Amino acid sequence: MSKKLEDLRKLLKSNMIDGFIVPHADEYGEEIIAERDRRLKWLTGFTGEGGLALIFADNAFLLVDGRFTTQAKQEVNSKDFTVLEYTHKTPGQIICEEMKIAARMGYDPKLHSIMGTTELRKACEKAGAFPLSVKHNPIDSLWENRPAEPSSPVFLLEEKYCGTKAADKIALIAAALKKAKEDAVVLFSPKRNCWLLNVRGSDVPFLPIVRSYAIAHAAGSVDWFIEPDRVGADLRKALGENVRILPPAIFVPEIERLAKKRKNIRLDPKQSSSWLENIIAIYGGKISLGPDPCSNLKAIKNDTEIACIKNAHLKDGIALCKFLYWLETEGVGKTEYEAAQKLEEFKSEGELYQYPSFPSISATGENASLAHYTPAKTGSHKLKKDELYMIDCGSQYFDGTTDVTRTVCFAPPSPEHIARFTEVLKGHIALAGALFPKGTYGFELDSLARQFLWQTGHNYAHGTGHGVGFFLSVHEAPPTISLGRDSLPLAEGMIVTDEPAYYKDGAFGIRLENVLLVKKADIAGESEMLCFEPLTLVPFAKELIDFSALTQNEKKWLAAYHKRVHETLAPHLSPTLKKWLKDKTEAP
Amino acid sequence: MSKKLEDLRKLLKSNMIDGFIVPHADEYGEEIIAERDRRLKWLTGFTGEGGLALIFADNAFLLVDGRFTTQAKQEVNSKDFTVLEYTHKTPGQIICEEMKIAARMGYDPKLHSIMGTTELRKACEKAGAFPLSVKHNPIDSLWENRPAEPSSPVFLLEEKYCGTKAADKIALIAAALKKAKEDAVVLFSPKRNCWLLNVRGSDVPFLPIVRSYAIAHAAGSVDWFIEPDRVGADLRKALGENVRILPPAIFVPEIERLAKKRKNIRLDPKQSSSWLENIIAIYGGKISLGPDPCSNLKAIKNDTEIACIKNAHLKDGIALCKFLYWLETEGVGKTEYEAAQKLEEFKSEGELYQYPSFPSISATGENASLAHYTPAKTGSHKLKKDELYMIDCGSQYFDGTTDVTRTVCFAPPSPEHIARFTEVLKGHIALAGALFPKGTYGFELDSLARQFLWQTGHNYAHGTGHGVGFFLSVHEAPPTISLGRDSLPLAEGMIVTDEPAYYKDGAFGIRLENVLLVKKADIAGESEMLCFEPLTLVPFAKELIDFSALTQNEKKWLAAYHKRVHETLAPHLSPTLKKWLKDKTEAP
Repeated sequence: MSKKLEDLRKLLKSNMIDGFIVPHADEYGEEIIAERDRRLKWLTGFTGEGGLALIFADNAFLLVDGRFTTQAKQEVNSKDFTVLEYTHKTPGQIICEEMKIAARMGYDPKLHSIMGTTELRKACEKAGAFPLSVKHNPIDSLWENRPAEPSSPVFLLEEKYCGTKAADKIALIAAALKKAKEDAVVLFSPKRNCWLLNVRGSDVPFLPIVRSYAIAHAAGSVDWFIEPDRVGADLRKALGENVRILPPAIFVPEIERLAKKRKNIRLDPKQSSSWLENIIAIYGGKISLGPDPCSNLKAIKNDTEIACIKNAHLKDGIALCKFLYWLETEGVGKTEYEAAQKLEEFKSEGELYQYPSFPSISATGENASLAHYTPAKTGSHKLKKDELYMIDCGSQYFDGTTDVTRTVCFAPPSPEHIARFTEVLKGHIALAGALFPKGTYGFELDSLARQFLWQTGHNYAHGTGHGVGFFLSVHEAPPTISLGRDSLPLAEGMIVTDEPAYYKDGAFGIRLENVLLVKKADIAGESEMLCFEPLTLVPFAKELIDFSALTQNEKKWLAAYHKRVHETLAPHLSPTLKKWLKDKTEAP
Repeated sequence: MSKKLEDLRKLLKSNMIDGFIVPHADEYGEEIIAERDRRLKWLTGFTGEGGLALIFADNAFLLVDGRFTTQAKQEVNSKDFTVLEYTHKTPGQIICEEMKIAARMGYDPKLHSIMGTTELRKACEKAGAFPLSVKHNPIDSLWENRPAEPSSPVFLLEEKYCGTKAADKIALIAAALKKAKEDAVVLFSPKRNCWLLNVRGSDVPFLPIVRSYAIAHAAGSVDWFIEPDRVGADLRKALGENVRILPPAIFVPEIERLAKKRKNIRLDPKQSSSWLENIIAIYGGKISLGPDPCSNLKAIKNDTEIACIKNAHLKDGIALCKFLYWLETEGVGKTEYEAAQKLEEFKSEGELYQYPSFPSISATGENASLAHYTPAKTGSHKLKKDELYMIDCGSQYFDGTTDVTRTVCFAPPSPEHIARFTEVLKGHIALAGALFPKGTYGFELDSLARQFLWQTGHNYAHGTGHGVGFFLSVHEAPPTISLGRDSLPLAEGMIVTDEPAYYKDGAFGIRLENVLLVKKADIAGESEMLCFEPLTLVPFAKELIDFSALTQNEKKWLAAYHKRVHETLAPHLSPTLKKWLKDKTEAP
């Protein structure tokens, strides 16, 4: 048994804790967590972005989703941990099986949302066990040389990029609270706080956030809990007097103070960690469970943001054209990692470029059939003439966040490649070219992108699209185009991806992804209709399209898209690339 | 003020009840209620199949859905009742506005489901009022000459029709209860009880049910609460000794007895009325809220039922062909009511035909734009040469329940008629011709049927399809093809309608409806795929189709469907009709 696991078990035993849950999570509920919060990795050795361990006196389990199973089994000592997929067993089932009557199941309430804790409590109840909220996470006292709290430079995102003053956003939140007769809302999510205050940082990779809590008051002020020395004088001035900068150590006392004054405080049950619920209740505050009001406001991009995002996609389009040309002329024989590096080189030529919005998926052949493959620095596959190559990448610019996927070939593709590529493309077009009534939810459109793959007995095991933040998270909800129900229907100014795909296990993978803007449709219908405008500007590989399988409308959509790609990008390209792009975007 | 309303207010006042709710509902939660349960009609004069009245000391409201607004305003005295649509105000909002702090809001717990009562309680809580469950419905004591409890002949549905012995169904329910560690389930819904016991009656119009409760026990027996003299010796023998026939007066004592024995009793929160919850709780029983197990089992039709249903659709197809021919040759100038009568005449020639499964919607011109129009005996419109005519009808045969809609023209139609008809047809085909993976829910397919209408800015304000019972309700869930989430995904053996539509207010209406059977698709896909087989056998009006707007696949689907309609029906038709059908089903 590893020393870490042994030590943890001893510590749990000495505290009379019979089971303990270690999620891949931080106290903010963020998608990307800092190194100091990777307790799951510290304990198990598993480096994937997700998962959850359950530790009992005799058994220990690591639960991961399907895309991480192989990796987890490689990284984790099988004598210590049984690796399972969530679809095979839920945490609740394992708790029911492992916990004895009256046993105590420990959890760190800072790492579980209110909703998640409710699930945990239900599982314990079923087992006849007791959930036990620990005051200090036992791993933190065992973790030697635990990385420090990140403290990246914090800066104001200028209004020429984000378009709306923080004061105006704060006023909207205050109005929402007043309307709901609530006194304050606790803002747990750094990306929502950053949106609200128009600030950014780089506390974690890929996601330009500042890890911090905030409290927004109905009276129109915001308390921002961040080490005061991180906030420079200029930023303080820009934020104005309605934003109080308070040290994180004051956060809990502030909550207690509000609770003692019997304030009515909103918590988002999906986002807020459950420890705060107890504090507010103990001190007599009233809790209103409801959505964090930033979430829905943030989903609708303003005109400045939209103009900026278009510019970001222009820069991405230029970089991708350079990359696709490089691939075509020099790619074969290079490794997947080298290709990703080359792409990064082209992207970094773009003005205001910061870093990727996620690790690039540069995958050839069978590697592309793993939806989330990332090439390692050493040992990644070489691009081959007869294999499909897939690139899924995104950028963080001061003026926007991007995400795009293309699949290309280096030699005449097989009929199977062409058939699947064409079905994926037809699905992509069915969504991108759809009109739909105002009030339509993303889930209603998901099957439009699948219908052609279904027709030949194929499918893809993920949603069709996700929202995208503005120089923030590349995954932002609402909106989504998937079976889950969003809190808002699709609306003008939302940004969403369109990425149907097909993966053949151990053989190849195809994914075609554009970012789309939701717009009013220019049509005299009976109800107001919406449609999409593609923001991504990168040609689709014509060699992989069976044009005879496209309808007139599909051909028209594709021709119009390629025309726009050409017209927008050509003025920014070298003569060689200009010629190349003309060829790539001309009708066959 | 009407005497009825005055008397009701007096009675409420003498009982210190400040508000009272009168739904269109019976104690079984059935879709079609008996005349004696039409308390809403008795009180308000409103004859529509739905709605809800809220009576307060000074105000009274009638809430209806949009399709009933005009009718309600005509039928109801506006001095007594304010007629509102649910979309404008919910019952909860009205309660909040009308009820004072500490006022008492009365309701008859037999007429509200557990879920519905929860909503009512929430509304009262918001208003600071108290929900008050009345022991006897005050309307019943005021209603002079209230119709008696229906007592139609009760009969066994032979196994050659329903395919599965009641004993086998009962064993499945018992197994489900044992697995869930529950002792019994209370079966509130007559249509589910009739399915379970293979019995039918005609206690209400259109729906061949016997109004009754039942209790199914984990031990494998069923208590059926029905006046013993309604159950003949043959039926008793057929039901066997595991089915105890008990008078309805014993129902509550039986529940009390189970509760006192601390039994764990399942109630379906959507179906069970809330009075029983209180009884079980008071006497110490344990309540498990969960779905009535009959509901999901009933959704999957067995091979015998499927063979029978196909035969029912054959008979319907023959009748509809006779009717469509009659329409074409003699229809113009006849009234909508006369047309419906003529159709009934043709349908009644079919073997085992009982009665319509709902009132036929026989609608010409603008009347067809009201989705649920039914022609009155006198004064209905005459069919005109230049108007579209829509017929939506269904039948109850011993061997199945049907539902079909067609829209036809009597003269060359306008370009607008053709454009909308073609979009509706393309949507119908997109759903009927879809393949989809096992595990797909009905809601995922709804937009397939809308996509072409959306493309030109049109839509329809109802779901795309509903499940159909077997010689039972024409509306049966699961499955549905609409945005609501079913309790089960689509599965082999389910029956569902496909009825996209378009309604132009005050002008015309188009709806095209087939009943579809869910089947395994004959394709070597990676996951198991399902598809639909149309059971309805009636040609679509070719004159209304723009064939140039159909894809090759759509043309192929339509040709194959028409070929099957012709091949199946022709042997049963007269030479004249045979010739007519050949013409109607030939490619243009």
